[in-house]
Amino acid sequence: MSYFDVASAAPLHPVARQALVAALDEGWADPARLYREGRRARLLLDAARDAAAEAVGCRPDELSFTPSGTRALHSAVAGAAAGRRRTGRHVVVSAVEHSAVLHAAAPYDTTEVAVDRRGRVDPAVFAAALRPDTALACLQSANHEVGTLQPVAEAAAACRGAGVPLLVDAAQSLAWGPVSGDWSLLAGSAHKWGGPPGVGLLVVRKGTRFAPQEPADERESGRAPGFENLPAIVAAAASLRAVRAEAAAEAARLSALVDRIRARVPQLVPDVEVVGHERLRLPHVVTFSCLYVDGEALLSGLDRAGFSVSSGSSCTSSTLTPSHVLKAMGVLSEGNVRVSLPPGTAAEDVERFLATLPRVVADVRAQTGADTVPGAANEPAATGSSDDAGATEPGAGLVVDSLGKRCPIPVIELAKVIGEVPLGGLVTVLSDDEAARLDIPAWCAMREQEYVGERPAERGAAYVVRRRV
Amino acid sequence: MSYFDVASAAPLHPVARQALVAALDEGWADPARLYREGRRARLLLDAARDAAAEAVGCRPDELSFTPSGTRALHSAVAGAAAGRRRTGRHVVVSAVEHSAVLHAAAPYDTTEVAVDRRGRVDPAVFAAALRPDTALACLQSANHEVGTLQPVAEAAAACRGAGVPLLVDAAQSLAWGPVSGDWSLLAGSAHKWGGPPGVGLLVVRKGTRFAPQEPADERESGRAPGFENLPAIVAAAASLRAVRAEAAAEAARLSALVDRIRARVPQLVPDVEVVGHERLRLPHVVTFSCLYVDGEALLSGLDRAGFSVSSGSSCTSSTLTPSHVLKAMGVLSEGNVRVSLPPGTAAEDVERFLATLPRVVADVRAQTGADTVPGAANEPAATGSSDDAGATEPGAGLVVDSLGKRCPIPVIELAKVIGEVPLGGLVTVLSDDEAARLDIPAWCAMREQEYVGERPAERGAAYVVRRRV
Repeated sequence: MSYFDVASAAPLHPVARQALVAALDEGWADPARLYREGRRARLLLDAARDAAAEAVGCRPDELSFTPSGTRALHSAVAGAAAGRRRTGRHVVVSAVEHSAVLHAAAPYDTTEVAVDRRGRVDPAVFAAALRPDTALACLQSANHEVGTLQPVAEAAAACRGAGVPLLVDAAQSLAWGPVSGDWSLLAGSAHKWGGPPGVGLLVVRKGTRFAPQEPADERESGRAPGFENLPAIVAAAASLRAVRAEAAAEAARLSALVDRIRARVPQLVPDVEVVGHERLRLPHVVTFSCLYVDGEALLSGLDRAGFSVSSGSSCTSSTLTPSHVLKAMGVLSEGNVRVSLPPGTAAEDVERFLATLPRVVADVRAQTGADTVPGAANEPAATGSSDDAGATEPGAGLVVDSLGKRCPIPVIELAKVIGEVPLGGLVTVLSDDEAARLDIPAWCAMREQEYVGERPAERGAAYVVRRRV
Repeated sequence: MSYFDVASAAPLHPVARQALVAALDEGWADPARLYREGRRARLLLDAARDAAAEAVGCRPDELSFTPSGTRALHSAVAGAAAGRRRTGRHVVVSAVEHSAVLHAAAPYDTTEVAVDRRGRVDPAVFAAALRPDTALACLQSANHEVGTLQPVAEAAAACRGAGVPLLVDAAQSLAWGPVSGDWSLLAGSAHKWGGPPGVGLLVVRKGTRFAPQEPADERESGRAPGFENLPAIVAAAASLRAVRAEAAAEAARLSALVDRIRARVPQLVPDVEVVGHERLRLPHVVTFSCLYVDGEALLSGLDRAGFSVSSGSSCTSSTLTPSHVLKAMGVLSEGNVRVSLPPGTAAEDVERFLATLPRVVADVRAQTGADTVPGAANEPAATGSSDDAGATEPGAGLVVDSLGKRCPIPVIELAKVIGEVPLGGLVTVLSDDEAARLDIPAWCAMREQEYVGERPAERGAAYVVRRRV
């Protein structure tokens, strides 16, 4: 088995495991108590806070331990926005923030700053979104789905100039180094860096207005109610220190493996789009999407072949909508795969993945009949005809009814019939799958066809494409 | 060392430790993922939920794991109140609920139901507090400071009759058995039953209106945002099952030890009030208060003698106010000690505690000069005079100025001068220590003097006492 989903959760670092087991014996008591066991727990908590603060680059009294990265982000958004409620209720976020940020920001008047096709925010556009009534701005250090680094230092400088606090979601990058720039708040998550679950970090720089919105509680500077998860906190801090010691060497090694995946996958698998920034990226994350591929089938094929990866495809999530990150980037969401390599990943495992992937993709395409799509690898000679060929309608050209069919079927049906209309002719795809909104334009871009636009239909939407090649 | 503060935190149960260490290897992945490691984590999570639900006496899909008991209570109050916001914003709580409940209920229109001197709610009074606009009622299964059991089943029946959901804080009792009665919501905390920190339980019975107030998140039925703390959850469930298997035998054994403490302490130490219900109580908790004793000095003396206990005295908390539980009961808060015995406590350790306590109390009393109080143990013959004897004022009798002096000094000074006024004469104590409001009337009750009342003073308050004996 090769586990390539460290961006979801990392296996426990050996140092974390050792620290956790030791702290179970030494750190179970209430650190607020004055007796021996409590004082011992307090010492462990203080030492963990010092270590974590040093790794983050903040003062220990600016750092609170929370029950998770998600809770840290929730508390950060609510506390910072409430601290500046007199300024206004406007919150700036990038369109590709983690859902924990987007959900926490939902009650506010929110501006989502767009990203480019590689998932990166333009710092000037981010700065321009700041308003006199902006209470808070939020920008991740690196994207969790495609690995693109964000211009945090530039955004922080712009925020500082405008008097707006910047919250940095550093969950994906904290293993690799501190976040540079003059940010005001920061959140992290220990199980992303080989610490145990149950520990997040919330950093609130001195001078940042902050009004915790949870009920009053004296623990963790009033910023994280509830009994401290001390053994896990001790393990989290130990693990952060340990991964940082290995970070520079491991970043270089994994980054080379990611470069290899980025280069080889499009050579090995037809109709693939590698997404995310090729240079300004996390060392260990690479994401690509495969045309005409059902994401869940692909994941399960890779799982059977011994590879654990995740996907932003709609068909693999419970919400039936494609990842908001891929959507914001405007890239294909079909057959999406995120590979995130744990520290220590062997080059041979990556080669084995590259050797396996083409067969798995081909199998999945054969299952959905995508292997008969004209232009697809191993396709039979184009016949100009298909079971799904639809009727023609005045003004709509050829109409393909994909209602009730889930991703990637609408795109496969489009690909099968496009040859049936003359150059300059129209194909209209009727679809009620949310992913079609993303994948039909993405297919057009990859296939050099013209995406004309969409209009509402009785059910779902009608997506109009003009044949150009 | 004898650790007698299991009501704060229990050392990890050996079964919990074993389960936790095993789950570190098997349960670190994201249970929402479909690959092998994720499915394995999901199986562990489901099994833990089944086990916890069986111990609580609910359906597995009614139970969510939260990051702590405190967070479970916060979510329960906010979610249940929001679920019934159309009914009203009135919340009923007992006056002796855990501060997590009181703080969570603070934003609402709250009625605090009084308790008797033994800390118990009268179910008829609780029922009478329900109103047509009551959104939620909250009653603990057992009090965390004095161990008194509450009439939860009766309260639940009354609530059910009135159509009001009852939230039960079962943190202190869940180790001993399920909570009986037709309650609607329940919260618990794993580190109180020998589980690790970082795990709470939130149970919401089917049919209970509940609107989670945290930002949207798909985990734990949307009731506990953030990545599941899986290894700790597995350990918590295993531990609950293990302590339940030993509960009946251990309850009988510890209860006998508590009976022994309840009987012997007043015989061994002069001027002690044992508080809480002598019969309707947790098996392992006993609380008493010692006149003329500084709580922090007592705790630190006991710690040096090898006993870890906690206290509801004002001088041992950061807030400088006595425990709201002791206050609601109207009992002495001076020199307060809570003993809560962990499972497995040896009878010899309890005997050693009983042998040590009198010396430690006497030492502390000697430090504050309380050993010279007339009527105190080993006091010298009453002299009718004291350094602190004050002036007499018309209508106020003898005035003792204790302004700026902290508990237990105001009571010690009162005790020293009461002999100086004639029978029927008045002593007025000026004090700005919040604890005096509780301790002066409590002293009067213990000493059979008449507490006349208090009135505001330029600083603090003036407490008036009439000499009766």
